[in-house]
Amino acid sequence: MATLRKIINDPVHGFITIDDELVYALIAHPFYQRLRRIKQMALAYLVYPGAVHTRLHHSLGAYHLMQIAISELKQKGIEITESEKQGALIAILLHDIGHGPYSHALEHTLVDVHHEELSLLIMQKLNAEMQGQLSLAIEIFTNKYPKKFLHQLVSSQLDVDRMDYLARDSFFTGVSEGVIGYDRILKMLTVHNDELVVEEKGIHSIEKFLIARRLMYWQVYLHKTVLSSELMLVNILKRAKMLSKEGRNLFATPSLQFFLQHSLSTADFASNDNNLIQFLRLDDSDIISSVKVWQEDEDKILSDLCTRLTNRKLLKVHFFKDKITDKINEKRAACMQKYNLNEEEIPYYFVNDVASNRAYNAGAENIKIIFKNGEVKEISQVENTLISDGLLVPIKKEYICSLS
Amino acid sequence: MATLRKIINDPVHGFITIDDELVYALIAHPFYQRLRRIKQMALAYLVYPGAVHTRLHHSLGAYHLMQIAISELKQKGIEITESEKQGALIAILLHDIGHGPYSHALEHTLVDVHHEELSLLIMQKLNAEMQGQLSLAIEIFTNKYPKKFLHQLVSSQLDVDRMDYLARDSFFTGVSEGVIGYDRILKMLTVHNDELVVEEKGIHSIEKFLIARRLMYWQVYLHKTVLSSELMLVNILKRAKMLSKEGRNLFATPSLQFFLQHSLSTADFASNDNNLIQFLRLDDSDIISSVKVWQEDEDKILSDLCTRLTNRKLLKVHFFKDKITDKINEKRAACMQKYNLNEEEIPYYFVNDVASNRAYNAGAENIKIIFKNGEVKEISQVENTLISDGLLVPIKKEYICSLS
Amino acid sequence: MATLRKIINDPVHGFITIDDELVYALIAHPFYQRLRRIKQMALAYLVYPGAVHTRLHHSLGAYHLMQIAISELKQKGIEITESEKQGALIAILLHDIGHGPYSHALEHTLVDVHHEELSLLIMQKLNAEMQGQLSLAIEIFTNKYPKKFLHQLVSSQLDVDRMDYLARDSFFTGVSEGVIGYDRILKMLTVHNDELVVEEKGIHSIEKFLIARRLMYWQVYLHKTVLSSELMLVNILKRAKMLSKEGRNLFATPSLQFFLQHSLSTADFASNDNNLIQFLRLDDSDIISSVKVWQEDEDKILSDLCTRLTNRKLLKVHFFKDKITDKINEKRAACMQKYNLNEEEIPYYFVNDVASNRAYNAGAENIKIIFKNGEVKEISQVENTLISDGLLVPIKKEYICSLS
Amino acid sequence: MATLRKIINDPVHGFITIDDELVYALIAHPFYQRLRRIKQMALAYLVYPGAVHTRLHHSLGAYHLMQIAISELKQKGIEITESEKQGALIAILLHDIGHGPYSHALEHTLVDVHHEELSLLIMQKLNAEMQGQLSLAIEIFTNKYPKKFLHQLVSSQLDVDRMDYLARDSFFTGVSEGVIGYDRILKMLTVHNDELVVEEKGIHSIEKFLIARRLMYWQVYLHKTVLSSELMLVNILKRAKMLSKEGRNLFATPSLQFFLQHSLSTADFASNDNNLIQFLRLDDSDIISSVKVWQEDEDKILSDLCTRLTNRKLLKVHFFKDKITDKINEKRAACMQKYNLNEEEIPYYFVNDVASNRAYNAGAENIKIIFKNGEVKEISQVENTLISDGLLVPIKKEYICSLS
Repeated sequence: MATLRKIINDPVHGFITIDDELVYALIAHPFYQRLRRIKQMALAYLVYPGAVHTRLHHSLGAYHLMQIAISELKQKGIEITESEKQGALIAILLHDIGHGPYSHALEHTLVDVHHEELSLLIMQKLNAEMQGQLSLAIEIFTNKYPKKFLHQLVSSQLDVDRMDYLARDSFFTGVSEGVIGYDRILKMLTVHNDELVVEEKGIHSIEKFLIARRLMYWQVYLHKTVLSSELMLVNILKRAKMLSKEGRNLFATPSLQFFLQHSLSTADFASNDNNLIQFLRLDDSDIISSVKVWQEDEDKILSDLCTRLTNRKLLKVHFFKDKITDKINEKRAACMQKYNLNEEEIPYYFVNDVASNRAYNAGAENIKIIFKNGEVKEISQVENTLISDGLLVPIKKEYICSLS
Repeated sequence: MATLRKIINDPVHGFITIDDELVYALIAHPFYQRLRRIKQMALAYLVYPGAVHTRLHHSLGAYHLMQIAISELKQKGIEITESEKQGALIAILLHDIGHGPYSHALEHTLVDVHHEELSLLIMQKLNAEMQGQLSLAIEIFTNKYPKKFLHQLVSSQLDVDRMDYLARDSFFTGVSEGVIGYDRILKMLTVHNDELVVEEKGIHSIEKFLIARRLMYWQVYLHKTVLSSELMLVNILKRAKMLSKEGRNLFATPSLQFFLQHSLSTADFASNDNNLIQFLRLDDSDIISSVKVWQEDEDKILSDLCTRLTNRKLLKVHFFKDKITDKINEKRAACMQKYNLNEEEIPYYFVNDVASNRAYNAGAENIKIIFKNGEVKEISQVENTLISDGLLVPIKKEYICSLS
Repeated sequence: MATLRKIINDPVHGFITIDDELVYALIAHPFYQRLRRIKQMALAYLVYPGAVHTRLHHSLGAYHLMQIAISELKQKGIEITESEKQGALIAILLHDIGHGPYSHALEHTLVDVHHEELSLLIMQKLNAEMQGQLSLAIEIFTNKYPKKFLHQLVSSQLDVDRMDYLARDSFFTGVSEGVIGYDRILKMLTVHNDELVVEEKGIHSIEKFLIARRLMYWQVYLHKTVLSSELMLVNILKRAKMLSKEGRNLFATPSLQFFLQHSLSTADFASNDNNLIQFLRLDDSDIISSVKVWQEDEDKILSDLCTRLTNRKLLKVHFFKDKITDKINEKRAACMQKYNLNEEEIPYYFVNDVASNRAYNAGAENIKIIFKNGEVKEISQVENTLISDGLLVPIKKEYICSLS
Repeated sequence: MATLRKIINDPVHGFITIDDELVYALIAHPFYQRLRRIKQMALAYLVYPGAVHTRLHHSLGAYHLMQIAISELKQKGIEITESEKQGALIAILLHDIGHGPYSHALEHTLVDVHHEELSLLIMQKLNAEMQGQLSLAIEIFTNKYPKKFLHQLVSSQLDVDRMDYLARDSFFTGVSEGVIGYDRILKMLTVHNDELVVEEKGIHSIEKFLIARRLMYWQVYLHKTVLSSELMLVNILKRAKMLSKEGRNLFATPSLQFFLQHSLSTADFASNDNNLIQFLRLDDSDIISSVKVWQEDEDKILSDLCTRLTNRKLLKVHFFKDKITDKINEKRAACMQKYNLNEEEIPYYFVNDVASNRAYNAGAENIKIIFKNGEVKEISQVENTLISDGLLVPIKKEYICSLS
């Protein structure tokens, strides 16, 4: 077969090169092309107008960083075969293929399955279609492959997934505080006992990476407007599903209709191919186009929420410093009275929840530093780094999202 | 009135400041918010995955450049009142508000109206709603205001619209060749006899601007894949409309359904408010979600084209150096035979057209240079610039778009 | 007077505008032009080849940020008169005018004066020359002006000086971890009780700013190679001065010769104009050209150190985790033996010192946050920020710099 | 030998990797380190304050682009051995090693040798020192190696030298109009009949590259202030040399003294090693420090020119549209009278010359495009490109540089 060589312009990383027939076939596959129609950051574009990049773009970017990581490791003498390289590249390329539109909202309403489980099911489906050529990629993805560092590049606290999404989300939102020196981190990676470790002089870049991620959480991913719009979408989908169960025939694309009428678990997706196929037809446009139509639905709650979300007249989020458990009922009652809402209506207009974020988890899949003398330490054990105390425990902020 | 001050993160220009109540009200208006759901570059993301930015983002960016332009001109002593400033800002903010989804395709199929006419109708509708506060903006937009340079900033060969879209499209596609020095151009603008002119030392920046625009045309806007996907969408919408006229009740969102069933002219939009309201409900999601459903339509042509577009199995575009009028029939016949297509089918699979682009038009709305001695010259008359010969005539490239 | 308007290309901030006659006269003054010949980061270019930007460039950049800061504050309704604006701009423009070449080395060897004292003396000299037009600038510089926030913009833990040098040093070294969101910080500044404060939603940008600064210290300003080369230059200048005192007539430019032969204190500069004039003739080229010539000096130590510095054969720096006071003598003795150095020679080849850096000092000139409810808190008192514990105390790292 | 692996931060290209012992030894060599002290753009920093980057930085950048170019070509199946790769890398690394300080001025005054001849002599000297390991690099540099494309990458109208200097000069000046898509160009290079050619779809990137270069000439390299300051330095050095010949013992570093007193040709450098060694001691600091001292020289012309250059009180350049040969004498006389200059003095204050620039030379070392059908065309022969007429002939602008 002649040498394949496609280049794709990426404003974040420059040019992305595709030079593997199998990878190219996967990218061209309808399951993957569907990711073009799913925004990486869901409704965050209501705050950051540039944040409309797609899951396809992110996974191509992570694939590109994996190429660099593997090339660097090989130059340092780490043995990685061509098959292992291909496996790791495919694992990262497909790591998010199980995402549906507005995943966060969807996974709490229309389906009861985590996107990583769906990613695995879809990879297995593709593997069957491609005569087992994805088997090694699946082993890496599920961390069953002996060279653990390949899995760690795909999924850990220092994986290329995070490197790409932080760099990309920072780029498209314009939040320069999220910029990370991923190229330097990639140069500092090496392998010790089949595990990914970072060379000593990369410590400050890792610190910066963790701080940038923490900052992106508070400034972007957990931004009040983002929280509010996602909660509103959750409530819209819950309401639509409830109305459907009550027998209403809401306008919806056929695939969205399917999920309004069925509540499926992981087992359902694994056992019945049609369920997965229906899922693979969904994308952002199904949700957005239906929400727009529902603005004029006869159900007052559904139509009001849809009108608000479509026109960006959102509920307001208020964070609280202290525990507010005891005041919730009071505030809830006040909201009911002020806006004349009854017990059926109030859950759609008054939500109490907790936003939580931990900069770094010293436990699972932690980050290890290797010193010049060969010693290896988990990063929070290294003296004088920023990774201590406050960064190791999750910060929780309780909030109320309600009609202002 | 308390001082309003909102800032919006823009990865292209930094922070955009909104400090005018009327502007803020227009941005918050559902007609404007709708632009969040319309991609600036239509289907170009099939080649450039980053090109998913929206018309809302572009018009906010152009608004920002207008702020800079006006501030620079005022610093140079050009008189611009607060009302004129507000008028120019609103005119540019709303200059694209008449765009529908995939405008290029739409304007050739579902509606028979140019987007600028719709922009004006929508501005007038907003003006009525806002007690005439947009009257000056409309005068500027329609070039009826005496200070011509304000209109020229909104619409001419050196307007802030172009500056923003070139900078923005270049940024989001990653095509660095389209980068322009818009900040320098803005510093070089001045006014002579109420007309916009460029200071002598800005000549090279203007050259670069025109060259960058020319390059973006060939490399991006007229990219083969972009041409092909847009032609395919045109054919899909034509087919859907034809089937609708024949009485088929295709799946569609209500607003799309409306335009499948009615063919409206500018006069129709001007005379019947409901037509405009239907139009203002349309966005990309209506088209994309319906095209996906039509993949399984009983009409073979519709379903095939929709499946191809959804999964990016596009027709191929071939450019020709010479006139091919005489060979068209031959090639068309070959295509019919090879793919077993009949006379009804072939127009959907074989299109002959011309891509055309002119770097600079020395005629209408041309660019003028002012020299230190006060002399003013149209730029193609200035010696030793690149603006000569080849750049003044439209380059036309004939092509066939067909099943390969 | 006709309107002056000069623009200067700055790769960091875009275009810098000069539109004030007095500012322009100061920039054109030989005292200021001299800063073109003094590198901002001294010998750091031995590690980061791009770090050759000058003190003139930095102070122009800080001047530009001051323009933005003042414009933002005025838009928020803070009263700042035209004279105050000019004063603040001049104060920041001239804040570093007292720097000599390789200041850090120079201030420990050739002169015994801190550069800020010289800046003030030079400003006073310029003020005399310019009929008192700099009086207000000097009041702001010396913090005698009632509106404290103007001084804080010039000199505090959140001044435009730091914003510019972090952004600029990060840009020219290519250390992306030092990138700061200075444009966002500038938008978050406001004034409370005549003091500079930061709006609540700017907290994360401030955290990022402090972390970036901390990182730049460890990765750049206190980089081993930078420390070593500066210590070597200190030792070279000490040796040259000692030899001069002993009567040797070393090659040197006349101004450098002057400082090899005289040891001047602040009082000497204040009382004798000629001393200041000699100082104002010095720049990097005096040092570099003489060091090159001294490579062939008859004094073995001088020639060896100069040859090493010129050709980048530097001493090695080793950091130690624990106090090494008790081991110093041992290591020193070992070095003497290994390289056959006597008691006179060893101080030039074995230096023991401490590198120290504190991310944030909660005491003097601290950073204050203003909350929506009007409350003002010093940033380390705000809950859940990164500014705690480790960042409040200076981190000290003891090191030895010696022949490896 | 252990694997060597050094990385250098480059703000322009990211990280530059050195992984070859011989290359590392050359970089560490005093002859190469000397390039740290020679500014790439000579006196251009008098206009563009950021333009202080060094020849060392540029040659490292070109080396980095050569690494990419070779890697891309190898991926396309072009055979390049490890020795050839090393040869090409060394050839580009050392291509500018013969530059002296302010080369343009120097080569017209102090020495009578073109820097490329000196580069070759120095490479040969290094080759002798390194037991012939540079022989292949020298063959490539002198275009004696059969695989012509290797030389073309080092030196042609599309070499990595130009790609780096345009990208780098644009970056450090902040002239965004000079930005080129070098990464895309590198992806489009291939080899045909041992010659470098560009793939068809790279045409627009090449156009952009040539336009950017043309623009950099007029806006930067031939900027009036740059021309003036360089002419003034030429006149200063001429005057100093004349005075030296007359027996004056001007202050100067020993190496500069040597060249004030000797006028050497290429043959002199080739035949006497000491001449080359003296040359290799010169850098910017010799010139700058001496010019500063000469401000107070007893020779009125020397002191005046040096004071002007040091303090940026430059002569003024005026361009003329038409031939002015006949008016020269008149203007010269007027200048003599106005400033009271005699026949000896006037040549230092009134210079008449021509600035010339050709965007593209279709003759020597031209650029070739390879089409999909295998056809190869020189780029000015390709239809509809910008490369026609005006770009093929040198544009000449006559100017006078004089006391205003």
